[in-house]
Amino acid sequence: MSVITIERKVLEKNDEIARQNRSLLERHGIFAINIVSSPGAGKTSLLERTLEELGDTLKISVIEGDVSTDIDAQRVARFNAPVVQIITNGGCHLEAKLVQDAFSKMDLKETRLLIIENVGNLVCPANYDLGEAMKVVILSTTEGDDKPLKYPAMVRNAAILIINKIDLIPYVSCDLSTLRQNALRINPDLKVFELSCTTKVGIKEWCAWLKEKGSERM
Amino acid sequence: MSVITIERKVLEKNDEIARQNRSLLERHGIFAINIVSSPGAGKTSLLERTLEELGDTLKISVIEGDVSTDIDAQRVARFNAPVVQIITNGGCHLEAKLVQDAFSKMDLKETRLLIIENVGNLVCPANYDLGEAMKVVILSTTEGDDKPLKYPAMVRNAAILIINKIDLIPYVSCDLSTLRQNALRINPDLKVFELSCTTKVGIKEWCAWLKEKGSERM
Repeated sequence: MSVITIERKVLEKNDEIARQNRSLLERHGIFAINIVSSPGAGKTSLLERTLEELGDTLKISVIEGDVSTDIDAQRVARFNAPVVQIITNGGCHLEAKLVQDAFSKMDLKETRLLIIENVGNLVCPANYDLGEAMKVVILSTTEGDDKPLKYPAMVRNAAILIINKIDLIPYVSCDLSTLRQNALRINPDLKVFELSCTTKVGIKEWCAWLKEKGSERM
Repeated sequence: MSVITIERKVLEKNDEIARQNRSLLERHGIFAINIVSSPGAGKTSLLERTLEELGDTLKISVIEGDVSTDIDAQRVARFNAPVVQIITNGGCHLEAKLVQDAFSKMDLKETRLLIIENVGNLVCPANYDLGEAMKVVILSTTEGDDKPLKYPAMVRNAAILIINKIDLIPYVSCDLSTLRQNALRINPDLKVFELSCTTKVGIKEWCAWLKEKGSERM
């Protein structure tokens, strides 16, 4: 009996429930994204800007993952989108079972786009499939341009990279093209958006893409 | 046989090795700190500024924890301090055994201050004692002032809070006094330093305190 074996079993069990989640979401024609990043890179801010931009034209539901508070769910609730809060009580990532439990509190028939905000952690959520269509990883310019190399699993497992806080480029040590190249070296298929949730530059492009994905399955 | 039980055994085993590490460090009169933060909050930058300021007067050794690269060890090596690199191969935190293994590659007799840079992760390293005298948690102003409430375990288990990137305050949504109060609400005993590794404001105060702690045990 080793810890590695137990971990493998936990991941296998998770993957099985993730498959059930994915099949349920597809049956309802729901496009689901799993947003992952370090603490403070802008997951909730991106959610706010996205709800502002698309909330009137697309039926969006939100699952908020947090270690110990519902601060983010309260921020998101102001936008009149249904929000289910998952508090992991210290747990460092969301798991498929928690998301499955959240489904029972949601009206899936009234959802076209499901946005799952994961726990702020650039390491552990990489290995946990929740049943989403794709992972969206946010890297902030304030974190520096070497982060894709230092946290490669997350970049490898994501389909979308959002580079946030590009308004802070003049004040931080981060070269945008180096950051982009470092990410594409790990995952050449990555689609990259560069934006600022503060100034809203780039938000329209991200939302246009997301709306198209969310509408495809209607 | 449950995952919880396994986790508890892993932590117990870790704590036992951490005790051995602590006792070894005390025998050598070494003051050891374990620096923890989100990716990109400034652990390596703080290390660079600290080595610049104290490297000539205090014998400092460094253990660098990373998920997959030695980028930070290379940055630190420029300052002529002995550096041992631990690569966790995807692991989300350092463990006491890894640090114990690193000791065998270090000259403890020639070390007064040991700085351990943990993996960039504000969740998982909170539970792993490495045998350090204290945990130093760095929060960056760019992460927002709510982070102590959202990641309380790390703030509770740290003795020192460093608020980094105070030069970016004019450009980000972060109230310094709210950030400080949120942290002290979780851990009233926390000693707080506010600084910028870019402009170097506050670095002298941090280094003066660290030098005093490092010298006490000589």
